[in-house]
Amino acid sequence: MPENNLTAILLLSCPDRGGLVSRISHFVFERGGNILDLDEHVDIENKYFFIRIAWDMKNFSISENEIISAFMPLAKEFNAQWKINFAERKLRVAIFVSKLDHCLQEILWRQHLGEFNIEIPLIISNHPDLKTLADHYSIPYYVFSIDEKIKEEQEKKELTLLKEHKVDTIVLARYMQILTSAFVNEYPNRIINIHHSFLPAFVGPNPYKQAYERGVKIIGGTSHYVTIELDEGPIIEQDIIRISHKDKISDLVRKGRDLERMILARALYNHAQHRVLVYGKKTIIFE
Amino acid sequence: MPENNLTAILLLSCPDRGGLVSRISHFVFERGGNILDLDEHVDIENKYFFIRIAWDMKNFSISENEIISAFMPLAKEFNAQWKINFAERKLRVAIFVSKLDHCLQEILWRQHLGEFNIEIPLIISNHPDLKTLADHYSIPYYVFSIDEKIKEEQEKKELTLLKEHKVDTIVLARYMQILTSAFVNEYPNRIINIHHSFLPAFVGPNPYKQAYERGVKIIGGTSHYVTIELDEGPIIEQDIIRISHKDKISDLVRKGRDLERMILARALYNHAQHRVLVYGKKTIIFE
Amino acid sequence: MPENNLTAILLLSCPDRGGLVSRISHFVFERGGNILDLDEHVDIENKYFFIRIAWDMKNFSISENEIISAFMPLAKEFNAQWKINFAERKLRVAIFVSKLDHCLQEILWRQHLGEFNIEIPLIISNHPDLKTLADHYSIPYYVFSIDEKIKEEQEKKELTLLKEHKVDTIVLARYMQILTSAFVNEYPNRIINIHHSFLPAFVGPNPYKQAYERGVKIIGGTSHYVTIELDEGPIIEQDIIRISHKDKISDLVRKGRDLERMILARALYNHAQHRVLVYGKKTIIFE
Amino acid sequence: MPENNLTAILLLSCPDRGGLVSRISHFVFERGGNILDLDEHVDIENKYFFIRIAWDMKNFSISENEIISAFMPLAKEFNAQWKINFAERKLRVAIFVSKLDHCLQEILWRQHLGEFNIEIPLIISNHPDLKTLADHYSIPYYVFSIDEKIKEEQEKKELTLLKEHKVDTIVLARYMQILTSAFVNEYPNRIINIHHSFLPAFVGPNPYKQAYERGVKIIGGTSHYVTIELDEGPIIEQDIIRISHKDKISDLVRKGRDLERMILARALYNHAQHRVLVYGKKTIIFE
Repeated sequence: MPENNLTAILLLSCPDRGGLVSRISHFVFERGGNILDLDEHVDIENKYFFIRIAWDMKNFSISENEIISAFMPLAKEFNAQWKINFAERKLRVAIFVSKLDHCLQEILWRQHLGEFNIEIPLIISNHPDLKTLADHYSIPYYVFSIDEKIKEEQEKKELTLLKEHKVDTIVLARYMQILTSAFVNEYPNRIINIHHSFLPAFVGPNPYKQAYERGVKIIGGTSHYVTIELDEGPIIEQDIIRISHKDKISDLVRKGRDLERMILARALYNHAQHRVLVYGKKTIIFE
Repeated sequence: MPENNLTAILLLSCPDRGGLVSRISHFVFERGGNILDLDEHVDIENKYFFIRIAWDMKNFSISENEIISAFMPLAKEFNAQWKINFAERKLRVAIFVSKLDHCLQEILWRQHLGEFNIEIPLIISNHPDLKTLADHYSIPYYVFSIDEKIKEEQEKKELTLLKEHKVDTIVLARYMQILTSAFVNEYPNRIINIHHSFLPAFVGPNPYKQAYERGVKIIGGTSHYVTIELDEGPIIEQDIIRISHKDKISDLVRKGRDLERMILARALYNHAQHRVLVYGKKTIIFE
Repeated sequence: MPENNLTAILLLSCPDRGGLVSRISHFVFERGGNILDLDEHVDIENKYFFIRIAWDMKNFSISENEIISAFMPLAKEFNAQWKINFAERKLRVAIFVSKLDHCLQEILWRQHLGEFNIEIPLIISNHPDLKTLADHYSIPYYVFSIDEKIKEEQEKKELTLLKEHKVDTIVLARYMQILTSAFVNEYPNRIINIHHSFLPAFVGPNPYKQAYERGVKIIGGTSHYVTIELDEGPIIEQDIIRISHKDKISDLVRKGRDLERMILARALYNHAQHRVLVYGKKTIIFE
Repeated sequence: MPENNLTAILLLSCPDRGGLVSRISHFVFERGGNILDLDEHVDIENKYFFIRIAWDMKNFSISENEIISAFMPLAKEFNAQWKINFAERKLRVAIFVSKLDHCLQEILWRQHLGEFNIEIPLIISNHPDLKTLADHYSIPYYVFSIDEKIKEEQEKKELTLLKEHKVDTIVLARYMQILTSAFVNEYPNRIINIHHSFLPAFVGPNPYKQAYERGVKIIGGTSHYVTIELDEGPIIEQDIIRISHKDKISDLVRKGRDLERMILARALYNHAQHRVLVYGKKTIIFE
């Protein structure tokens, strides 16, 4: 069979039992795969098993297209949720923005440097403001203005566009609209948001103002998957920055910009490398 | 007049106006004081002024006992809240504990090293468990068992004891009881608590369990002055530590112990050096 | 006299003595200035005094041009090094780059958002690579190729250009050339460099490779003023990021990019707000 | 065979090749072990493989004493360095101290709480000062005064004592003596030191003074295994704390105490759980 240069990445979770690592790693070994990276986790309390395993397919005896059916019997026996991706088949990611440029700027610049293993076929916004930035990186920019009356209708158009571009993951890079449940349900655990507070503190609008008024000494940011409950989705990454009484709300906004874009970038980085497993309301991050 | 070796520390806040720094520093200068440290802050939005100024009294023309009346006219003119302390007159601090030793251990050990500028005349607890630790550092340990029926009565006895020992500040070093309003009102902005979450996230009991269940990637701790609203007092210090999916609740408790004792120690350190000014629900920390 | 809207900022250091704060703040007060911010520091060991004081000149009785001569007598009496700047008179900053874009990108983007209080009249490079980025922000970009033979000659041309543009401060944003002493001496404590290690660890070339080989668990970055001794200038800002055995040199470079641009941005931010006082080999940062 | 309640932990490194994970995990599986934790790492550049694997021996078909000979053939085939420990067989750790108590205090207190999975059969010091602290925790304390003339002789007595107590690991908790090569070679990669700087910065004596004089904005600490080259051993853990121009050397010492004891505690924690693999001058930490 022809040599291939792919790297396969299996993400799997299932009820814990003896022999899981042995049998999964044997599946790879007996077909000539060379394991590059393996990380596993057992939730002892709930007796649940999680694994991420990446292997070199250069000498693998079956092709990319045959893997799923080959692995299926094992997965069924284990009663597993699972997915196999290939590092070289880049995720197709759409970015949603409104008027603030810092998160978009950060993602596009990192993408330009090749930090993420993704493609960005399009940017969608409810405002035209960031088109110049999109143009600088030669990425198509679509505007769908949103108000409550036309939201559903506009989202349908957006979904059509996303499907045309074979989009796998959506990043809300300070997109100031709440998506409908219908939209969210099309991309379960594949819409990444950045919220500008240390969730669950300061849910909802104006978290920096809330933080300022409470007099906290630290502000935070949270990147999470979007679920139909606002700011309640599984958390992928959080970080904080120290503030003091000298900082006005405008200073919190300025310092927060650095936090937000770093956190969102790290969340996307791990998501794009298939390092994130969602488990109930939580995530396992195989770093 | 006799030379004295005191260092005076003025903490003052008042409506902002021209000449405040000039006139306050002149008050010190014209009496022969040498300013060792001065830090000020203006809340521009609310036009409010805050200052901490420390001076060497070696050549000061008036004595410790005359300072208050000498400064009074200026303070009245400025419509100020203010207090003058002397670095060499150590704060008298009572520690309240229940059964957990980590915060008490940390404070007593640092006190033994001379890190805090305080005296600890007594420890009060609702359990006898930590008496051995108190004994090791030769500090009197009093037990007042607490249940809802006798709480008021016991607190009255505690207040009597605190007054006998001329206690200025109370530290709740993981004291597992909620103080009554009557008690709290005796020590306004002078009771320091440590809450084992990043407030305002995870108010109330079992914050580590709450954090575990929410799946946060960072846990925090908060030291604040106690007010009659639970976990709502002015925040003195906060800090965080990173956790992962590998950490069970017991790991959060273990990692949190380190956080709690460091945060509480820093809050007490700044309080004891008269570096904390309360302003509404917030604090100014002159570090 | 006409109202003016300037904010004056005095940075001063001198041997410590009684009455410095009082007399300096009185200088401001008696001329009708309103102090917005004052921070001071005394090096007790060396008996040296440092102050930054900012005041609103709206009702100031003398004009911008008269301040220096008005303050001169006091400064002479105190035997002080001092400088008065005006917040509204923006620093003119030249950026020097080679081929790496991350620090330049960060500075230009923040400048575009208005975070710095500066003007950037020109960018100078020894390579043409980053001209596109300069063009995107409409900033003139000059190329002076450098090798040892022509370095002195090229630097002279650069100096002429810098003077034409009235440049006050130079930022070396990963500029890969060592400047001659002659050049450095033209901008004492006004050339800001970013070194990609936690100085004094890993001086010289390839610090990430050095860090990788030593097996450190943390990498750092350092922004400092350039002196004629390589990597020995007064440190303005440092920060670090955690790494692990999983990180290859390329990961250190990637993580280090984030460090470098944040550190350099913070150093420039403080420098541009006249918050940095150099004192021997060290800096006082009035944050 | 009788049920046993041990948890086996294999640490292994060898040249990389196909099938390592599969065959090692199969070794566990076919004998009825249940893998609790597995982490592996491949150094791709040097083609070297590292693994830590922990399994429950409840239903394991061979006993604790038979494991080594059962695993030997596999280890030989892989040309591996390896060791099998049992979580329930606690490491026996000796603490060496001089006069400073903070690291010893921290370790004994954590040990008292049960944080480490170790036994501490004895403390050795070159001074009698910390005997009271040792007594409080009921741990035997031996004094061997040291000067250059008698160092070798005293170390021999110490080694005899360590062997009598079956000591596996030595922690230098701010022990102010340099051990001879002869001593170090008795405990290769089993002597843990804490150095109070961010190595490789500020090697040698008085790192806080060195840091103060260089004007760094951050100080650090480093825990490493002791080798015969001073401060050059494999680094286990590092951390840092921010300082400012306000901090005198005594403040650096105070802040550094917190750093040192936290870093040393984390290093010992990971070492005692067999999470550290030394690889040349570096460590792999399986956290």
